[in-house]
Amino acid sequence: MLKFDKEKKLSSVKGALALRPEIEKIVDEIQNEGFDAVYFMGIGGTWASSMQVEVYMRGKSSLPVFVENAAEYLTTGNKRITSKSVVIFSSVTGTTQEMVEAIKVVKELGARVLAFIDIKGTALEEMSDYCVIYPENEQLKFYMVANRLMFNNGEFSDYDQYNQEMEAHLAEALVDVEIKADDFAKEFAAAKYEFIKKNPDMPHYFVGAGNQLGSTYSYAMCYWEEQMWIRTKSISAPEFFHGMLEVIEAETPVILFVGEDEQRVTAERVANFLPKVCRNYVIIDSKDYELKGISGKFRGSISHLVTHGVTNRIDVHMEKELCHPLQIRRYYRQFDY
Amino acid sequence: MLKFDKEKKLSSVKGALALRPEIEKIVDEIQNEGFDAVYFMGIGGTWASSMQVEVYMRGKSSLPVFVENAAEYLTTGNKRITSKSVVIFSSVTGTTQEMVEAIKVVKELGARVLAFIDIKGTALEEMSDYCVIYPENEQLKFYMVANRLMFNNGEFSDYDQYNQEMEAHLAEALVDVEIKADDFAKEFAAAKYEFIKKNPDMPHYFVGAGNQLGSTYSYAMCYWEEQMWIRTKSISAPEFFHGMLEVIEAETPVILFVGEDEQRVTAERVANFLPKVCRNYVIIDSKDYELKGISGKFRGSISHLVTHGVTNRIDVHMEKELCHPLQIRRYYRQFDY
Repeated sequence: MLKFDKEKKLSSVKGALALRPEIEKIVDEIQNEGFDAVYFMGIGGTWASSMQVEVYMRGKSSLPVFVENAAEYLTTGNKRITSKSVVIFSSVTGTTQEMVEAIKVVKELGARVLAFIDIKGTALEEMSDYCVIYPENEQLKFYMVANRLMFNNGEFSDYDQYNQEMEAHLAEALVDVEIKADDFAKEFAAAKYEFIKKNPDMPHYFVGAGNQLGSTYSYAMCYWEEQMWIRTKSISAPEFFHGMLEVIEAETPVILFVGEDEQRVTAERVANFLPKVCRNYVIIDSKDYELKGISGKFRGSISHLVTHGVTNRIDVHMEKELCHPLQIRRYYRQFDY
Repeated sequence: MLKFDKEKKLSSVKGALALRPEIEKIVDEIQNEGFDAVYFMGIGGTWASSMQVEVYMRGKSSLPVFVENAAEYLTTGNKRITSKSVVIFSSVTGTTQEMVEAIKVVKELGARVLAFIDIKGTALEEMSDYCVIYPENEQLKFYMVANRLMFNNGEFSDYDQYNQEMEAHLAEALVDVEIKADDFAKEFAAAKYEFIKKNPDMPHYFVGAGNQLGSTYSYAMCYWEEQMWIRTKSISAPEFFHGMLEVIEAETPVILFVGEDEQRVTAERVANFLPKVCRNYVIIDSKDYELKGISGKFRGSISHLVTHGVTNRIDVHMEKELCHPLQIRRYYRQFDY
């Protein structure tokens, strides 16, 4: 398999899951001290991950947990973020401009800050009350926080079983996803290359719901737009029916992500609609992957990781088909703006 | 001016503003009874209007005011919506499927419901505790609720001056916007028609921030996609810099809305960036319009109405240029899906 290091993937996920005792200790301390609200704050891809953890908790937990966009916070502000609030964020580089400025403001307010940063020794680490250093696996880290918050609040009775299954099986299950998806991804990328060659301006439509919405948004924007320079539009499955459906024609390219959380039905509605008006759609459904050792009742909480496993393979093959190294940028951080 | 009934526009806005005593009475009663939170709930365009009122209050008010998407509520739920909550929504038809179902659920919970509906005698009116019947002007209605909530909470000391100015001048000011914008809109629509004829698949990119974000989202989706069948993508100005910028080239069509609320600076950042990489952009800035009689400090609260005045004129001319009546739909409510 192209650019696939199985051992590295396994150890990456296992290492993230092994952060649990460290995360639990922090969450317990924060929760014992009390808070008026918890804000997952981000910008771009990390804002999208924040959306994923918020929607995960929204229907299950009475805890006041919200999403905040760093750049909106720096301008509009949020009068409900106080010295009693907790702000949680993730940063790969530890230097994202809007995050550095926003965390300065919340620290001046006296709020507590929990950071997840990929590398040691950054400005954002210095500014945070709690900092967990570990590369990648942003969603897993956020969901471990969410799970502990809900467990402490009496809202997660299966907590031990959940963690046992994840720690025993998740890494292998996600590696199996990538292995199983590879043939599909290779064909998909080859077909996309041919389509894009003929239709360079046509946007590719990405649809998702629930914990797939954050990943759909960031996959369209942070991968296809930013890394591949391909036009996209992303939309939530329920909102698809309130406008966007009208621009779907027979050859319009649509990629629908279907997960297994409570909003699955909204994505299924799109899946039922598409074949009536379109022949150029692809459905990526987490249900098509076995996830050995993971109970059915827990699958919804990780279906965004499953579809991400599929898109990982798409990215590798798209990079090759397009002859476009994914790390190059036209504009981002190339000049002042 | 094409399809422009000045007297009708004036009386529509004046009539909406005249709802204030009725709205104040309802808000006062709700606020005297107390609530754990207020949720503006919507789907599609009404969800976008909900976003506009939430961002308007976010930096000014400590009241717990949130946005909820009706279809997400029906699936994921929201454990923080309780019998002590207040749900506020707007509906043109009074029959939107997701809203009818969602209001059923919140009524069963025992939450109080305040409805704004354009016409009398609908299912949604029947289900609501409070209902204000008046056509159009959704944002004005929501902002009147917001203003009264903040006034009662000691967060709007200029309340009387604000209302005096709006009631004396807003209707005329918005009519003047449409009159001033008409020549621009006519030229814009003619140029767009030529561009679309040559580039039918190219998406038109709409960028906005603050109270412009909801209107940017719904303008792209509910007007260009749904009514004109033209491809679009909308994005917030801060998020533009976290991915989408990479697909902007010299001839990529971008429409940037610039308002006058706290997030204006984020839109200005996009305005500074665009000329460096693109020659096919248009900036629609509320600051270019006089708004006679409205104090500078209040302009931010209505800049989404100003840019909407401009887009009203664009729509009229686009309809003519495209030979595409804006009321026709390919799919929406045409068959079961």
